[in-house]
Amino acid sequence: MSSFTAGEGALWQALTDAQRRLANVHMRDMFERDTTRFSRYTLQADQLFLDYSKNRLDDAALSSLMALASEAGIDSRRDAMFAGEIINSTEGRAVLHTALRADVAQSLLVDGTDVIAQVHEQLDRMERFVDAIRSRRHCGSSGEAITDVVNIGIGGSDLGPAMVTAALQPYAQSGPRSHFVSNVDPVQIHDTLAQLNPKTTLVIVVSKTFTTQETMANAKVAMAWLLAGVTDLQPHVAAVTTNAAAARELGFAKDSTFLFWDWVGGRYSLWSSVGLSIALAIGMSSFRKLLAGARAMDEHFCSAPLAQNMPVVLAMLGIWYRNFWQAGSHAVLPYSQRLQRLPAYLQQLDMESNGKRVRLNGDAVGSATGPVIWGEPGTNGQHAFYQLLHQGTDLIPCDILFARRGDTADEQGHRMLIANAIAQGEALMRGKEDTQLRDEMQTAGLDEEKIKALLPHRCFPGNKPSNTLVFDQLDPRTLGNLIALYEHKVFCQGVVWGINSFDQWGVELGKELAKGVLNALNESSPPAADESLLGWVMRP
Amino acid sequence: MSSFTAGEGALWQALTDAQRRLANVHMRDMFERDTTRFSRYTLQADQLFLDYSKNRLDDAALSSLMALASEAGIDSRRDAMFAGEIINSTEGRAVLHTALRADVAQSLLVDGTDVIAQVHEQLDRMERFVDAIRSRRHCGSSGEAITDVVNIGIGGSDLGPAMVTAALQPYAQSGPRSHFVSNVDPVQIHDTLAQLNPKTTLVIVVSKTFTTQETMANAKVAMAWLLAGVTDLQPHVAAVTTNAAAARELGFAKDSTFLFWDWVGGRYSLWSSVGLSIALAIGMSSFRKLLAGARAMDEHFCSAPLAQNMPVVLAMLGIWYRNFWQAGSHAVLPYSQRLQRLPAYLQQLDMESNGKRVRLNGDAVGSATGPVIWGEPGTNGQHAFYQLLHQGTDLIPCDILFARRGDTADEQGHRMLIANAIAQGEALMRGKEDTQLRDEMQTAGLDEEKIKALLPHRCFPGNKPSNTLVFDQLDPRTLGNLIALYEHKVFCQGVVWGINSFDQWGVELGKELAKGVLNALNESSPPAADESLLGWVMRP
Repeated sequence: MSSFTAGEGALWQALTDAQRRLANVHMRDMFERDTTRFSRYTLQADQLFLDYSKNRLDDAALSSLMALASEAGIDSRRDAMFAGEIINSTEGRAVLHTALRADVAQSLLVDGTDVIAQVHEQLDRMERFVDAIRSRRHCGSSGEAITDVVNIGIGGSDLGPAMVTAALQPYAQSGPRSHFVSNVDPVQIHDTLAQLNPKTTLVIVVSKTFTTQETMANAKVAMAWLLAGVTDLQPHVAAVTTNAAAARELGFAKDSTFLFWDWVGGRYSLWSSVGLSIALAIGMSSFRKLLAGARAMDEHFCSAPLAQNMPVVLAMLGIWYRNFWQAGSHAVLPYSQRLQRLPAYLQQLDMESNGKRVRLNGDAVGSATGPVIWGEPGTNGQHAFYQLLHQGTDLIPCDILFARRGDTADEQGHRMLIANAIAQGEALMRGKEDTQLRDEMQTAGLDEEKIKALLPHRCFPGNKPSNTLVFDQLDPRTLGNLIALYEHKVFCQGVVWGINSFDQWGVELGKELAKGVLNALNESSPPAADESLLGWVMRP
Repeated sequence: MSSFTAGEGALWQALTDAQRRLANVHMRDMFERDTTRFSRYTLQADQLFLDYSKNRLDDAALSSLMALASEAGIDSRRDAMFAGEIINSTEGRAVLHTALRADVAQSLLVDGTDVIAQVHEQLDRMERFVDAIRSRRHCGSSGEAITDVVNIGIGGSDLGPAMVTAALQPYAQSGPRSHFVSNVDPVQIHDTLAQLNPKTTLVIVVSKTFTTQETMANAKVAMAWLLAGVTDLQPHVAAVTTNAAAARELGFAKDSTFLFWDWVGGRYSLWSSVGLSIALAIGMSSFRKLLAGARAMDEHFCSAPLAQNMPVVLAMLGIWYRNFWQAGSHAVLPYSQRLQRLPAYLQQLDMESNGKRVRLNGDAVGSATGPVIWGEPGTNGQHAFYQLLHQGTDLIPCDILFARRGDTADEQGHRMLIANAIAQGEALMRGKEDTQLRDEMQTAGLDEEKIKALLPHRCFPGNKPSNTLVFDQLDPRTLGNLIALYEHKVFCQGVVWGINSFDQWGVELGKELAKGVLNALNESSPPAADESLLGWVMRP
């Protein structure tokens, strides 16, 4: 591990100085002075094009950021991850979601086992299962085809499959319909099952440990519902877990239990058997294209020099705003209704990975770590929160995403969508100057008093940063690129901050306390002191 | 208007000092020292119970916050709003969403017109229309009942109706199914219509100006789809707008055009005819209960002393964290799957209202204004981003919401949900101390070296603030309470910051630039310089 510490050292100081220098420089002027800025501050990686020219950045700051990436040891840490070293030190585990999309010709030994062979064994098992269901060879107990799949899982066992399945709807036309149930709130499982027929439904229970409270509660409801409607449960259920024994104990057959491994973090698991619901929806051939897209990004990440490395560039821009411009959050703005769950997906990926307060060695971090990730699809967001992006008091960096081509025959509609995406990046960057506004208001016939009163309200300071990610079309390979890009971005930031991006001890305490509260609620015995929320809730 | 200016004055200084004093005080200790804290820091308003005891607050700080509320002139500004004064000064308009839920016995003259009489005239028209559709007296052109309603609108014409309709599903069992189309991305309207039958569909076009780009584009697609499938368009369409002339011009009949007024902001409009899709789903009697719930909160807001005034208390807690603890965002965590769109709804309400940089008089604000609002339903969020809430480096205040009773027969499932909600507030506040962790790890048989290595990663600092809002059940009246509570909270914060919470000039520039970009895309003429994102997108 490098001896670099975030918050310290000459490069950190250089970047602090660079921020001071750039705080009063407008991007508008930087574009004017340098007509090559756009082409110099863009990158291509497989299907993805990144325009990062609209950032509060010059060559000197960029070069310091890249030096920081290098000093933090991103490349050696990356190599350690891909090699299967135990980089998740607090849990004593390798971190090998990249092995989940490795080519079958590769091999990687972990504890004497070739994990890539294991991965392809499960993929081949998935393929047989998926093909059998989609070709209607595997039917329900009464011989009817499976028309609906209910994925029961939470966190990484839900967000990835749900996000990808929605994103790739055009590829899911011949598959069963997908439904996702995650919340322990019973309305979700009840509302979902109410519209389905058990005879034509497959329920997939997805849990790394097969003990997740929410998932097990929902699975129990779903099993009871199935049992009341079918003669044989087996054709209607599948399990996805690292804990085959627990699945067997609960009655899941070996043939319909799909495995993954402890070196797959939940939030990095959609590439594994956890993606079963995706594969059922879009077919195994499209699922393999999704994997190939991620693999292409892995290869880019492993081979491109730091300054041309898309995940590294995005990561360092994030560090730039988070640590030197005090940005508390980062907005993800996909101009694509089908990517509506991407912000929620990235929320988990990023915030669960990098919402940490101590370094690998246990010391308190000396800088801010992961930001809040949030967003909604454009153009919807424009009519909701963009007001604050343009005229609020905080700097909020954004990622704007769009496809050059749409999925429908309505080309004009898609052009309107794109026009908005491009215009917003431009508006955030450029702003609108008083002189132009004044001219417009004069032309509109407003009197001087009115102009003076309105001008400050209608003025746009601009100088708001955004990245734009463009791709030809939202297809499986491109989506694979995109998700892996963000995975590696988050990884690089974790390296710079010196934290473990792969554990999540912060979720333990709430789980633990919930057990005690549930016991109290079940026993109808309010806590000794009535002076608490629990006591109040339990009042008759 | 008061002479108070945020960022200045003795009270601001007192609060700055209070923050310094409290920065090293743990809430755990405050609870220990004061066994009455819970009951003293709780409030009831109609159906809502607020526990704000888990805040980094003592009596002195609270009393300074209340003095600030008073000095900022919240009460007089509130009275001006309810009285119909032109408080939206940059647009020269009154702000009267509260009149939309006023009792029929009340009256309020604006420019010589009784707006409350106008409101009830439209409500009565809505009622006749809604009753006719729900009782199947108003049918499609071929005599079939209307089974599906498509609401086409964006921003306030979408988020409110969509959020409320999802929240009140149990009250929508006998109504038509609801669908919401907002995005100009053509996949949304195409996917929605693909599953519907024009003969049994009603399309509602909702736009304040009836010129909104996205809404008009989607309306055009929907009209063409209807025309291809029905013999007479009229029974299949309705318009909701302030611009009756534009609706008439586009062929909407007077009888199916429902009005609202320029003194209703889009993000405050669900109480008006904009709520037509809500009323069709849940029936007019439930819709009137929703209005009554908001009215009850209005009455509370107008009559309760500041320190017992729930919107004021929530607002000042927000000011406390935003301006004195530098919180950049605020999380909304409904423990209710049906409230899954509440965070997106509040995102617009809050960020579009208070994402402002100048005061009413045009001066730059001297403090941070509106925070980023974000969130996902619990328990889902626990498996996604709570890691960062518990162990990240920023302080992020949260609102946790839950109902004592659920909507299904599964009482145990609902108790698990509640247990998690209560436990999270407790965990955020209390944290977990090293000594306890050490004991647990020793009991688990970990050796000293391992304990030492893991301890910092597993430790929870706690001292993270949250408000908890509890209600008996998520019914129309309660939801009306809740939305109005947040409306008034946002209003109070705007008063303290001295900004206009009711305009949204910040959305104009993007719209304007999008027109130019769309023209370029349509004419296939890339901009002079190829050195731009637009040029790149338009390359062959």
